[in-house]
Amino acid sequence: MDEIVNELNFDKLGGLVTAIAVDDATGDILMVAFMNEASFRLTLERGQAVYWSRSRKKLWHKGEESGNVQIVKELYTDCDADVVMMRVEQVGNAACHTGRRSCFYRKLEDGRFIDVGEKVFDPEKVYGK
Amino acid sequence: MDEIVNELNFDKLGGLVTAIAVDDATGDILMVAFMNEASFRLTLERGQAVYWSRSRKKLWHKGEESGNVQIVKELYTDCDADVVMMRVEQVGNAACHTGRRSCFYRKLEDGRFIDVGEKVFDPEKVYGK
Repeated sequence: MDEIVNELNFDKLGGLVTAIAVDDATGDILMVAFMNEASFRLTLERGQAVYWSRSRKKLWHKGEESGNVQIVKELYTDCDADVVMMRVEQVGNAACHTGRRSCFYRKLEDGRFIDVGEKVFDPEKVYGK
Repeated sequence: MDEIVNELNFDKLGGLVTAIAVDDATGDILMVAFMNEASFRLTLERGQAVYWSRSRKKLWHKGEESGNVQIVKELYTDCDADVVMMRVEQVGNAACHTGRRSCFYRKLEDGRFIDVGEKVFDPEKVYGK
């Protein structure tokens, strides 16, 4: 596994790479977060997306609370190896903590961002208050 | 335009947001880069992707050398407004400086990254030596 880890460039973002989860079923971008080396290794080991939470400063196994884990079907990096892109099976059909399928639900129209998201679950029920 | 700019959170990444270009025709992710506030404003003004080059520390109008500009068809942000995702018309059908259509041409298979990219142009001919 070291060989793969060493191919990535964690230096450009202070120990992190950008990580993108794409819905393998639809091709839609579900979310963007970050991985440090440890979380990237865990992602490979578990076959599920594990990010590094910058706000909480801890490993973040996506879906650990909601059950909406992301099963990695394919994994890519880009030309300069500072981004990881995963095609995932999104369990629960929702990646966003707001209950929407994708985090990219705010579309620019007529000079403002409008909500075009599809709400899949009620976050209050899933995460509690 | 200030209203839109102020909706984005440039603070989490030291004055930058992550910026993703998606091929509007295919839905494929073409590239990931960054925008500072000035480049985001220029993107909106010109209707073409303008990034902030961290390595060159300057505004980077994508395609300024190769002619392969990215015409913005739709623009989204995510739940916490620190990522911009654009659906673009990729002029020249290639976003990557290596001459490939997408920067995400390195796929993990059997424990290593293999090249699955489609070469569209010869970078030596486009950028010179």
